[in-house]
Amino acid sequence: MNGVFSRDKVLTIDTMNPTVKNVEYAVRGPIVQRAMQIEKELREGVKKPFTEVIKANIGDAHAMGQQPITFFRQVLALCSYPELLNENMFPEDAKNRARRILQACGGGSVGAYSASQGIDCVRQDVARYIERRDGGVPCDPDNVYLTTGASDGIVTMLKLLVCGEGASRTGVMISIPQYPLYSAALAELGAVQVNYYLNEEKCWSMDLSELESSLAEARKHCNPKALCIINPGNPTGQVQSRQCIEGVIRFAAKERLFLMADEVYQDNVYAEGCQFHSFKKVLFELGPEYSDNVELASFHSTSKCYMGECGFRGGYMEVINMDAEVQAQLSKLVSVRLCPPVPGQALMDLVVNSPQPGEPSHITFMKERTATLSLLAEKAKLTEQILNTVPGITCNPVQGAMYSFPNISLPEKSIKEAKALGQAPDMFYCMKLLEETGICLVPGSGFGQKDGTYHFRMTILPPTDKLKILLAKVKEFHQKFTQQYS
Amino acid sequence: MNGVFSRDKVLTIDTMNPTVKNVEYAVRGPIVQRAMQIEKELREGVKKPFTEVIKANIGDAHAMGQQPITFFRQVLALCSYPELLNENMFPEDAKNRARRILQACGGGSVGAYSASQGIDCVRQDVARYIERRDGGVPCDPDNVYLTTGASDGIVTMLKLLVCGEGASRTGVMISIPQYPLYSAALAELGAVQVNYYLNEEKCWSMDLSELESSLAEARKHCNPKALCIINPGNPTGQVQSRQCIEGVIRFAAKERLFLMADEVYQDNVYAEGCQFHSFKKVLFELGPEYSDNVELASFHSTSKCYMGECGFRGGYMEVINMDAEVQAQLSKLVSVRLCPPVPGQALMDLVVNSPQPGEPSHITFMKERTATLSLLAEKAKLTEQILNTVPGITCNPVQGAMYSFPNISLPEKSIKEAKALGQAPDMFYCMKLLEETGICLVPGSGFGQKDGTYHFRMTILPPTDKLKILLAKVKEFHQKFTQQYS
Ligand SMILES: Cc1ncc(COP(=O)(O)O)c(C=O)c1O
Ligand SMILES: Cc1ncc(COP(=O)(O)O)c(C=O)c1O
Repeated sequence: MNGVFSRDKVLTIDTMNPTVKNVEYAVRGPIVQRAMQIEKELREGVKKPFTEVIKANIGDAHAMGQQPITFFRQVLALCSYPELLNENMFPEDAKNRARRILQACGGGSVGAYSASQGIDCVRQDVARYIERRDGGVPCDPDNVYLTTGASDGIVTMLKLLVCGEGASRTGVMISIPQYPLYSAALAELGAVQVNYYLNEEKCWSMDLSELESSLAEARKHCNPKALCIINPGNPTGQVQSRQCIEGVIRFAAKERLFLMADEVYQDNVYAEGCQFHSFKKVLFELGPEYSDNVELASFHSTSKCYMGECGFRGGYMEVINMDAEVQAQLSKLVSVRLCPPVPGQALMDLVVNSPQPGEPSHITFMKERTATLSLLAEKAKLTEQILNTVPGITCNPVQGAMYSFPNISLPEKSIKEAKALGQAPDMFYCMKLLEETGICLVPGSGFGQKDGTYHFRMTILPPTDKLKILLAKVKEFHQKFTQQYS
Repeated sequence: MNGVFSRDKVLTIDTMNPTVKNVEYAVRGPIVQRAMQIEKELREGVKKPFTEVIKANIGDAHAMGQQPITFFRQVLALCSYPELLNENMFPEDAKNRARRILQACGGGSVGAYSASQGIDCVRQDVARYIERRDGGVPCDPDNVYLTTGASDGIVTMLKLLVCGEGASRTGVMISIPQYPLYSAALAELGAVQVNYYLNEEKCWSMDLSELESSLAEARKHCNPKALCIINPGNPTGQVQSRQCIEGVIRFAAKERLFLMADEVYQDNVYAEGCQFHSFKKVLFELGPEYSDNVELASFHSTSKCYMGECGFRGGYMEVINMDAEVQAQLSKLVSVRLCPPVPGQALMDLVVNSPQPGEPSHITFMKERTATLSLLAEKAKLTEQILNTVPGITCNPVQGAMYSFPNISLPEKSIKEAKALGQAPDMFYCMKLLEETGICLVPGSGFGQKDGTYHFRMTILPPTDKLKILLAKVKEFHQKFTQQYS
């Protein structure tokens, strides 16, 4: 071949953006790739000790058989094909919602770009929803930005915050265990990830002394500017108490930290005595010294709660006390990507403006919503109970969200063997579990955990019968594994 | 107020990410914001010399009254609300497409996350479409990534490419005039924007000597790694010839540049003698020295062509000759954002797998598609013709895409006045046009232009009657403006 042309690539692992290389994302990492391979092998007739892969690796409710809310899908169909407005098959309230959304779209079509910040009337509906949720604390629609899933909002906010080099690089405090979007985005942006540990002994609550020491340590080598909280928690399933949230806000005020509250699981609260408190509400209840000053961005999504509509990539963020010039920059930044998906915006609108008492769809809507949330509550309980019967597995109550993050004790011998293979011990465990039982979980190391402790994350989403099989198999596997390596 | 609390913001214009501050995005810039204000004023009864704002600032077909393709919307409605599969109102081919898409979705729901790279069967359909389009040149579905609009694919590719500091910072060559997503993304990533000028005298074609001198100059202060081409062109409306594309590919091969071909307007070709040639096809026709070596990413979207479905944020990119390790990094990177919107993926599937002869929807589909494209061709011609009758406006033929980018001569006095106001002279012109006529165009300075030349960009999308009014008003305004400042 001609010398000019037989050449190395322009873009190689050595010449590419190094920050991208640092990104990790366990929820879709090697274990999930292997699970997909195994599914393919099963389809091709390869014999395994199981007949199907049970996936409990990702918070994807519909993929696990949860049914969509009828009203939402009716309105979405009407918006997609407005000819259906002429049919008698849809309830009047669904038609009215669709007409209202279509009227707010350019040319009356969900196929037009919306304003970059999101459709006006949807942002207004979001604002009213937030006000109702927070007992009347005011919300200005101009502070609401619709997003492409919560992921998009979180990454956009981090992008605004991060700058500097060396010791003045921006640090962002995130909980450990964390949802790995945060570590991935921080790696990509070249920011410093500042870990604070959740207290496993106290049901994964936030610990003020831990926040303080983590911050003090971080200040030695970077410039910590923001504190991220996931409540209800992923992967840990806790619901933070009002008192804890209050403490965190006081801490952020004192230490001058921008708060990012990931509240995508705000309807997923199951445990008795637990309640969802939005950071915004608590902030305002602390009085004007706080509510006029502390900067907060909070995030919501259509992907979780009772709707579980992940594929539509709907979401919003609300910014509070953001500097006006910065907010103008934010508005400019989001305009570059033109707009979030309009069907996702429509869906977000339905979530914040669901059927009201007296409307024809109200009863069905409430029935579906309640059924989904009750089933999740049941599965949360079931998961905790069964896992805690396994010697060597300890599991906090799944107070909220969709996950259990049990502590697993691994025999020394298995840890040695994993390390010899260059694998994290819980990755070794989860891989073996997958190969032997077809169950797909994510190792705790993908989310972060205290050194020397091991966990896995499982979602509570599989249908009850499958969840029971899954839990029974995990139990059996864990006992076998413990024996094998003792 | 307590000293601890009455404090500056954490996040201010001085402490925020400086690269975000450098971002500009003219298509949704100040002129559009003013247009939206004026619309509001009109609604509130403020008297103006016009009764409506006519927007020709953005390539948003549905917003301008273009109707969606019936088949696409039927399938999307079926996917959103599969109950409709039981109704007799939809043609069988629409139902079959919906069933096929739903089967490929987790839990049979478009509400499930898809694989991060996109739904398998959609990627397969895209690959077959590319093969048909390119006369049989093979396409591997594993090289196809579905995206959140083409914007997402373009930014993701740039993110992979960009690194380095100082003189080794990555340079990316972009055409001037350009679509400002490119300059915005490069600013955000901290890359060096390397301009090459399109040749206005030769109908905005690419000029090899210009590419060479631009590259040589850039090599003095950065590390140019990629060359971006938009064909058919935005904002310039040209369609590059096969010969020109061949020259560009040879240039990229010789100079070791990664090619990025933005081909979102691939069906928007109107001028006689013009034809769309994909970079991939030409690359393969140049033989294995090229097709085995030159790295190429090409981008497509549901937003343009005859469908104009911007709101769904569908798109794909194909990568060719990408280093395997880099591609693994790309796959990991896209997994962090989970997946592109599934309705947009479904729509992309319909675009690449449209009704076939013999299927019940074929005739209507072809009629709608042809009508839209013929109308656009007509409006392209009309725009060129009328603008060229205005003394002081010179306009290349709109060979493709959806835009005209005429050259306007501005009187010295107006240029001085603009500069005194700190405004670009064509921004001053467009602002005045907006205030006096209600017509919203984007100044050429938002896309880049040769120093001392002035342009505006207008879309050809308004309905013919409005387009005629718009063109007549521009003509009248330009004459008045010229007189006033002479
Ligand atoms: C805590 C948390 N935040 C954000 C997200 C992102 O969700 P989406 O982008 O689908 O809204 C998830 C998804 O699992 C999550 O668990
Ligand atoms: C040349 C070009 N590329 C990319 C895009 C982005 O389009 P989307 O993200 O809607 O696919 C546009 C939109 O106008 C464009 O004109």
